[in-house]
Amino acid sequence: MNAHGRGYVRELAERAREAQRAIAALDTAERRRLIERMATQLVQQCDAVLAANALDMARGRDSGLGPALLDRLRLDETRLESIAAGLMEVAAQPDPLGEVTRRDRRPNGMVIERQRVPLGLIAMIYESRPNVTADAAALCLKAGNAVLLRGGSEARASNTAIAACLHGALRELGLPEDAVSLIADPSREHVLELLGLADLIDLAIPRGGEGLIRFVAEHARVPVIKHYKGVCHLYVDAAADPVKALDLLVDGKASRPGVCNALETLLVHRDIVPVFMPLALEIMAKRGVEVRGCARTRTWGDHVRPAEDADYAAEYLDLILAVRVVDSLGEALTHIARYGSDHTEVIATEDVAAAEAFIGGTRSSAVMVNASSRFNDGSQLGLGAEIGISTTRLHAYGPMGAESLTIERFVVRGEGQVRHPESVDAT
Amino acid sequence: MNAHGRGYVRELAERAREAQRAIAALDTAERRRLIERMATQLVQQCDAVLAANALDMARGRDSGLGPALLDRLRLDETRLESIAAGLMEVAAQPDPLGEVTRRDRRPNGMVIERQRVPLGLIAMIYESRPNVTADAAALCLKAGNAVLLRGGSEARASNTAIAACLHGALRELGLPEDAVSLIADPSREHVLELLGLADLIDLAIPRGGEGLIRFVAEHARVPVIKHYKGVCHLYVDAAADPVKALDLLVDGKASRPGVCNALETLLVHRDIVPVFMPLALEIMAKRGVEVRGCARTRTWGDHVRPAEDADYAAEYLDLILAVRVVDSLGEALTHIARYGSDHTEVIATEDVAAAEAFIGGTRSSAVMVNASSRFNDGSQLGLGAEIGISTTRLHAYGPMGAESLTIERFVVRGEGQVRHPESVDAT
Repeated sequence: MNAHGRGYVRELAERAREAQRAIAALDTAERRRLIERMATQLVQQCDAVLAANALDMARGRDSGLGPALLDRLRLDETRLESIAAGLMEVAAQPDPLGEVTRRDRRPNGMVIERQRVPLGLIAMIYESRPNVTADAAALCLKAGNAVLLRGGSEARASNTAIAACLHGALRELGLPEDAVSLIADPSREHVLELLGLADLIDLAIPRGGEGLIRFVAEHARVPVIKHYKGVCHLYVDAAADPVKALDLLVDGKASRPGVCNALETLLVHRDIVPVFMPLALEIMAKRGVEVRGCARTRTWGDHVRPAEDADYAAEYLDLILAVRVVDSLGEALTHIARYGSDHTEVIATEDVAAAEAFIGGTRSSAVMVNASSRFNDGSQLGLGAEIGISTTRLHAYGPMGAESLTIERFVVRGEGQVRHPESVDAT
Repeated sequence: MNAHGRGYVRELAERAREAQRAIAALDTAERRRLIERMATQLVQQCDAVLAANALDMARGRDSGLGPALLDRLRLDETRLESIAAGLMEVAAQPDPLGEVTRRDRRPNGMVIERQRVPLGLIAMIYESRPNVTADAAALCLKAGNAVLLRGGSEARASNTAIAACLHGALRELGLPEDAVSLIADPSREHVLELLGLADLIDLAIPRGGEGLIRFVAEHARVPVIKHYKGVCHLYVDAAADPVKALDLLVDGKASRPGVCNALETLLVHRDIVPVFMPLALEIMAKRGVEVRGCARTRTWGDHVRPAEDADYAAEYLDLILAVRVVDSLGEALTHIARYGSDHTEVIATEDVAAAEAFIGGTRSSAVMVNASSRFNDGSQLGLGAEIGISTTRLHAYGPMGAESLTIERFVVRGEGQVRHPESVDAT
C-alpha cells in the first residue's frame, strides 16, 4: 500500500521472489563474481559504512545501550576488512547448486537424479551485529536464493550502508537489486507481516536472543529454522584422560563464554571425581569462573555455591559453570535429555564403548568425543561460512552453510516411459 | 487432564516421545523384525480388522459418504494382504539410520562425520484411507521415530483395529505401545491441541484434501511438511516425438485421474500444434476426457470448451484437461511458474538443450524429461514406500521415504583438540 505501511513487506518479498529467478539463472562463475564484487564494494565504500556506523554508535550511546551490545554494533576498518575477507571465502567455496548428489537407473531404463536447487526466498531476522547483513546475503546468493533482511533497529544506518554496497555489486553485474532486500523500517509490525507471507517466503531464520526467537516461532506462518540457545555439556567419563578433560573444560568454558557453543554444565563420573574434581575446581577458580555445584561437588570446594534446578537449564553466556557428579554414563545422558538444548555435547573418555554409548544416547546437533564444544561452528567443521547453527531437527541440524540453503529435488530422464503401458496401448 | 479432554493429546505425545527412546535404541535387525511382526499381526488379525472396517463402512453409508470416499475407506482381504506386503517391503529396505553419509579429517586431526538420526516424534494427520495407519507407522519406526496418528473420524474403528495389530507387535518385542499412538477421538479440538505441541512434536505431516492441509498450515506451531495438490503439466515441445508425447498424455491424464501426480494441464508449442493437437484431442475424446482449451486450441476441435483462468489453476482429479498453446518454451515456463503447485512437470522433447532449459526453469519437486508424471511416487523412483510427496521446499521435496524421516547431525572424534590452545596452555 503506502511506503512503509501494511503491504510494504509483501511488496518487497514479491519483488525479491521475482529477482530470485535472475540469481538462480546465474552460473557458478557468475555467482562467484557477484560475491567477490560485494566484497570489493564493501572495501571501496569503507568510509561511508563507517560513517553510518558512527551514527548508529552515537544513537546507541545516547539511548543507553550496554557495552556488550555497543561492541557488537561497532565496525572499524579491521572489522570491515574481515567481513570482506569472509565474503571472498564464500565466493571461493564449491558451488552448492546443480550438483547431482545421486544417480540411479530404474529397471524400466529411467535415470533418476537428485539435484540441488535453491530454496527460493529466505528471510533473515537478526539483531545488532551489522556483519550479518553481508554474511547472510552472500550465503543466500551463493546458493541461488534471494534474501529479505530484517536487522535490528539499533544498526539501521550501518545495515543500510552495507546493503548499498551489496546493491552496487548487483547493479555492476546487471542484476536486480531486489535480490537483496533490506527492510528499511525494522518495526515489529513489519516482522509480523513478514512472518505471515507463507506464499512468498520459503524459510525464515531468526538469529539472536531468546526473546527474538520465541517471538518468531510464536507468530510464523512461514517455515522457521531456529538457532536457539546452547546449553552445552561436558561429561567427564570414568575412563577419561584427566589432562585432556581439563583442556576441554578450560577451552569450552573460559575461552569465549559469551557464545552459544561455550560449555554451561560439567558432569563428572563419580569414579573419576577424586582425581578430576580438585583440579577442575582449582583451574576454574584461576580462570575466574564461578562454580555452582551439586552436594557431592560441594564437598570438594568451600567456595562452590549450591546449584539450583534452574542452574542446569541456564545458558549463562558468562563465567559461570554448573557442575554435577553422576553415578553413570546413563545418568549423564538422562541429565542431558532433561536440561540440554540439542546444541553440543562433549564426552571425555578413552573408552571406545563409552564414546559410542554417549553418541548413541544423545540427540544433539553435534556430539564431540575428546574435542571441544567450541568446534561446533561452520568454519571449524569445514563448511566454510555459516548462516547460523540450527537446533531445529528438520532440514538442517547443526551449523548451516550454503548447502543448507538448497534442497534436493528429483530429475527423471526417460525415453517415453509410462507407468501403465497396457492402458496406453489400448487406445 | 481427563480421558479425552484438554491435555489428552499432550499426554499421548509425552508418552510417545518417551517411547521413542526405546525405538531409537533398537539395532537394524530389531527394527526390521518389529515391522515384520506388524505385517504378521495384520494378517493374523484379519477378521477383527475387517469386522471393524465393516462397521465404518456401514456408518459411512448411513451418513451419506459418496462412492469415492467409501472406496477409499473399504478394506478386504486382498487390500489387507497388500498392506502387509507393503510393510514387509519397508522392513526389508536398507536401514536409514546410523549411516555415516560423509567423513572428513580436519587439519587439526579431528574426524568429522555426518550421521543420520531419527527426527523424534512425528504426527501424521490424515483422512479416510486406513492403510495410512499401518504405512506411516512402519516408515516412522523404520527410521527410529515414534508416531502420533490422527486419522479421519469415518475410519475410526478400522484405525483402532489396525493400531491394535501394531501394538501387538510392539508388545511381542517388549517395546512400549506408546511408540505408535492413535488419537482415539479425532475431533478438531484435538488436532488443534496437537498442532500446538511445539515442545514435543518434531514434524507434522498432513495428508489429504486441500481443506485439511490449509487447516494444519494455518494453526501449526510445530514444523509442517505439506503434501499439497498436484497441478501437473505436460509441455509438448516443438522438438517432441509426437508418439511419445501422446503416450505421456494418456498415461498422465487417463490412467488414474484421481491422484496427485496425474496431469491437469497440457501446454503445446505452436510449431507442433498441427501435428500433435488433432491426435491429442482425438485420443482424449476416446478416453472420455473433457478438454478445456485456449482460443488457439479450440480452432482444432468444436467440442473443446473455453478454458477460464481458474481452469489452469485447478487440480481436477477427474477426466478433465486444460490445454493451452504457447509460443515458446519460455512461455510454458512462465505459465508453470504462475499456475503450478511445485509438484511434477513433464517435457516431451528430443532436443537436449530444450530439456535442460526446462529442468533449469522449473522449481518443482520432480521434473520429468520424456517420462510420465505418474512416476512421481516413492516406490516408482526407487525409495521404497513413501509417507507422501512433499511440496514444501524444506527438508524433503518430492516423495518422502524412510530416509526423509531422519536428519543428519555432526559427530566429531578427537584426541583432546581445543580451539584456543594458547588460552588453555596459559593456565
